[in-house]
Amino acid sequence: MNDIADRLAGASTPALAGLEPYAGFAAKTPYLASREEKRSRKLCASLEEAVRKAGLADGMTISFHHAFREGDKTINDVVAALATMGFKNLTLASSSLLSCNAPLIEHIKSGVISRIYTSGMRGKLAEALSHGLMDEPVNIHSHGGRVALIQSGELKIDVAFLGVSTADDFGNANGVSGRSRCGSLGYAMVDAQFAAKVVLLAEEIVPFPNAPASIRHDQVDFVVKVDQIGDPSKISIGAARITSNPRELLIAKFAADVVEHCGFFEQGFSLQTGSGASATAVTRFIENRMRKRGITASFALGGITGSIVDLHKKGLIETIIDTQSFDADAAESLRTSPRHLEVSTNQYASPRGKAAYVDQVDIVVLSALEVDLDFNVNVITGSDGVMRGASGGHSDVAAGANLAIVVAPLIRSRIPTVVRRVNTVVTPGECIGVLVTDHGVAVNPARPEVAERLKAAGLPVLSIEELHERAVSITGEPRPIEYLDKVVGIVRYRDGTVIDVVRQVKG
Amino acid sequence: MNDIADRLAGASTPALAGLEPYAGFAAKTPYLASREEKRSRKLCASLEEAVRKAGLADGMTISFHHAFREGDKTINDVVAALATMGFKNLTLASSSLLSCNAPLIEHIKSGVISRIYTSGMRGKLAEALSHGLMDEPVNIHSHGGRVALIQSGELKIDVAFLGVSTADDFGNANGVSGRSRCGSLGYAMVDAQFAAKVVLLAEEIVPFPNAPASIRHDQVDFVVKVDQIGDPSKISIGAARITSNPRELLIAKFAADVVEHCGFFEQGFSLQTGSGASATAVTRFIENRMRKRGITASFALGGITGSIVDLHKKGLIETIIDTQSFDADAAESLRTSPRHLEVSTNQYASPRGKAAYVDQVDIVVLSALEVDLDFNVNVITGSDGVMRGASGGHSDVAAGANLAIVVAPLIRSRIPTVVRRVNTVVTPGECIGVLVTDHGVAVNPARPEVAERLKAAGLPVLSIEELHERAVSITGEPRPIEYLDKVVGIVRYRDGTVIDVVRQVKG
Repeated sequence: MNDIADRLAGASTPALAGLEPYAGFAAKTPYLASREEKRSRKLCASLEEAVRKAGLADGMTISFHHAFREGDKTINDVVAALATMGFKNLTLASSSLLSCNAPLIEHIKSGVISRIYTSGMRGKLAEALSHGLMDEPVNIHSHGGRVALIQSGELKIDVAFLGVSTADDFGNANGVSGRSRCGSLGYAMVDAQFAAKVVLLAEEIVPFPNAPASIRHDQVDFVVKVDQIGDPSKISIGAARITSNPRELLIAKFAADVVEHCGFFEQGFSLQTGSGASATAVTRFIENRMRKRGITASFALGGITGSIVDLHKKGLIETIIDTQSFDADAAESLRTSPRHLEVSTNQYASPRGKAAYVDQVDIVVLSALEVDLDFNVNVITGSDGVMRGASGGHSDVAAGANLAIVVAPLIRSRIPTVVRRVNTVVTPGECIGVLVTDHGVAVNPARPEVAERLKAAGLPVLSIEELHERAVSITGEPRPIEYLDKVVGIVRYRDGTVIDVVRQVKG
Repeated sequence: MNDIADRLAGASTPALAGLEPYAGFAAKTPYLASREEKRSRKLCASLEEAVRKAGLADGMTISFHHAFREGDKTINDVVAALATMGFKNLTLASSSLLSCNAPLIEHIKSGVISRIYTSGMRGKLAEALSHGLMDEPVNIHSHGGRVALIQSGELKIDVAFLGVSTADDFGNANGVSGRSRCGSLGYAMVDAQFAAKVVLLAEEIVPFPNAPASIRHDQVDFVVKVDQIGDPSKISIGAARITSNPRELLIAKFAADVVEHCGFFEQGFSLQTGSGASATAVTRFIENRMRKRGITASFALGGITGSIVDLHKKGLIETIIDTQSFDADAAESLRTSPRHLEVSTNQYASPRGKAAYVDQVDIVVLSALEVDLDFNVNVITGSDGVMRGASGGHSDVAAGANLAIVVAPLIRSRIPTVVRRVNTVVTPGECIGVLVTDHGVAVNPARPEVAERLKAAGLPVLSIEELHERAVSITGEPRPIEYLDKVVGIVRYRDGTVIDVVRQVKG
């Protein structure tokens, strides 16, 4: 348009100050001048090309999601590629890390990775970190706490690398279509929202527009086709197995009794059951109790398993809120049921967001590695002081729920689970209402009304001190762990504060 | 937890510097300490309560969506309430304004509203603004351009007031359930994403969790129950009517011929047809042409009408991308069809977003008030120089599409539509491929390949100068409009630059 100067001539108003005149329709969007480029501008021939275009530099923060759990193929591959490209001193912010991430050890040793934020860690990587592999302690956060760290500005993601089963050429992507379906992209949705640059690693490029768009094209900078992003058959290995252990089933049965009689088991109640063995088993035991009472649940929340999906299909759970799909049944239900909703971990659990699903939960059943006399829960360090778990959504949903029930065997491998003082606090005892063990049930003294209801229902209610004494009477008092001074982990509470530190174990 | 100090004692690492120790699970989320408050904390008993809690102050920017078009009941009511509360000097950023917004005139006169950003205006409000009602010129933006102004930081929304047909107590909301369904909340989704504070005006409060959540609870600060947010029966009054005018039908038939022969009418093509009468009618004429060729469209974009829904139901359009539902058929299809997708105006059209649907469109059919010899298009001022239209998505999709077709009668009310120089440029001629009138078709000289195809198909192709001469030969040369110096409107191109100004008309 040639007459723009003429059109603006003599136009005198302070409102025009600082505004630029029009300079061509593609002046600020040059890709629009080419019919080819406007469509292909995000597609990169290689990961390396995407990394260069994203402007990654030494010292920056990279992020990943862990929806494939032990089947993930993205995190190790990308970090290995970045190592080959010569990057150093990166902060790794994966929503979590698992045993499969042991190859990261070499990239920590070589200085490619110098800081880590994660919900948890397992296997050889966890062993190495517990024994002082890094100079900087690992920041351990909950799922909601991770979002809060991003929202507070502490955790600034420069480049997110997000594996998706399908994406179109603009980056509309999901985890419910294509070959390698992880189901919900709840973690990835947060990184897509907040990262400065977003690189999708897509196993399949599908015709535009891909739907549903869990990640949207207005969030994505670059798209790279990769051979495989992960193995969905390995998602349910690890924490999300279904138990046949009689002790775990006994605990689950007690826990279902607690759910039934705690006072919140009413028409329209809501629940979350964690990914631990007993917690998952609880879901199976509440079906008959719901039918007996003639009630249905308004929603089930959290990491979703086939057990939850089964109750949803039977009409006993109206809506499923899914931030992580723990098995193929969950992923398939997310794809097919209009009342199985995919939500980000911001919607799920952030204490800095404008609201979280966890705030609306009535009853949650959670696992524990240790519980102490103050009902504090440890889900991160083993009885030897070595990190081998994950914070997960534990402290998030415990804070939001009307009643948090922790399930654990009284004794594991001849070591008490109920202890005087947990090695590491992840979830504060003030958020825990009931502890369920195979030897009986303890209720937090802050919840006397719950204790009354459970006693009235005939449940074996003991004090937590009695449970502790019973454990010690069987195993003897465990030897204290010997620690060195070095801090290897900082346990961040969901609001960003420090609730505990993990020190290097001796030997 | 009492032993936090003990746990952190002697923990010495620079990584702890600046981090706060844990101070209670509800220290930063006090509402979690109350079972009632954590659920009801967003609900306000009145609009006034929500305004106070949102912290609105004089000089701030308030925003609205216009999905109810002439049936909107939110904008006027909220501004009237703010006037009663004594607010002054507010910037009004509604995604658009229509004839129904005439009551705003008094609030402009009284100083409640001192600046306006809008896509367009009609009726008495438009007349008054054109005649110099405001000291500050109105900023007129396209739908994508509005998002770009927000993304650039120029337009900072302090409080968004968003009418929704249903919301739950946390603010999960949509426009497809409840009584007053406007369909897509494409405009509101942007304000929910970017505004500092978001107040929902909900006609119905429904059980948690409301789904689908076009607006999500992590985006919403306050929820107010109101009697009625709008009258959906008035959405399709105005621009989105279905024509029975023979001249408009003739234009639509020519336009359908152009669509068929322009070179982009192939299997998997994509299209947008605007909300004007002829443009909407085109949709009806292309069905047979698609069947004849045996092709289907991959997607239809834009403001969506029942005509588009009809082709979708017949399997001729695979996916509908809906940023605004122009009638009840569109709203119902959005509710029921899994391939009728609701998208924000950021996804739809922002040139500052990471991608826009408009970039992927093959063919768009658009209306015009005037077209000039350079193919520049005016959709905002009438032949008398008075503002009476809307920028809408016009310049957005013209910039993105492979071929933009403009439809208009050669003469309106004895005044030429094809003119030497348009009163006001909204869409630059470089983005327009073809002009279709009832007297023949003109092709932009920059697209000779399109002209060849249309001539080969037997279409009446003339030069735009020939169309202009024909118009003038019938009507005579129109008298130039007499303007005063005062600038009453600034036409912002979608990238934020100034493409024209509108001056006050004399008299």
